[in-house]
Amino acid sequence: MTDAGLRLIAAALAVGLGAIGPGVGIGIVFSGALTAMGRNPEAEGTLRTYMILGFALTESLFIFALVVSLLIAFQII
Amino acid sequence: MTDAGLRLIAAALAVGLGAIGPGVGIGIVFSGALTAMGRNPEAEGTLRTYMILGFALTESLFIFALVVSLLIAFQII
Amino acid sequence: MTDAGLRLIAAALAVGLGAIGPGVGIGIVFSGALTAMGRNPEAEGTLRTYMILGFALTESLFIFALVVSLLIAFQII
Repeated sequence: MTDAGLRLIAAALAVGLGAIGPGVGIGIVFSGALTAMGRNPEAEGTLRTYMILGFALTESLFIFALVVSLLIAFQII
Repeated sequence: MTDAGLRLIAAALAVGLGAIGPGVGIGIVFSGALTAMGRNPEAEGTLRTYMILGFALTESLFIFALVVSLLIAFQII
Repeated sequence: MTDAGLRLIAAALAVGLGAIGPGVGIGIVFSGALTAMGRNPEAEGTLRTYMILGFALTESLFIFALVVSLLIAFQII
């Protein structure tokens, strides 16, 4: 059990735990957009814009976790 | 207890933890789409498009975790 | 405490953690389908199609975790 093994554990924890919140959050964003579109299909264009914005901002949290995971995995930190 | 054992733990943690968030998120996406279709069946085509988009973007988080898990498992990192 | 013991822990973690998210997600998919069917029983055929699609795509995340667990358990990785 050396630091090389713990490095792999750390990389896995970063990407695994980092996917929990955004995974749920992105689903909630799209669910809200789909519900709104079913209720008012004429607003599709406006809803799409904010849906993509919400997706990108939620996804950004996972990207940070992924970057930290890759920094650990490839021994940059 | 060597690094080879820790490598297996890390691969399991990455894929296991990575499935939690997207697993819930994909369910929420489909639930929102089904609710909207029940309310407004005429919008099925539009809703299907965004449902598949939401599924794919939520699934992508799990794919990242799976890739990290396989990178660890097959000793690439 | 040898690698053989860690292998068992890893196999258990992969399948156990991997069941959390899809387990909740599949429940949410069926809940949404039931809500929509209760509101609009005439749309049952359409809703059933998407319900099964949603179930299969959510289940796929667990299948990936199960495959990784079996790969670990049977010493393929």
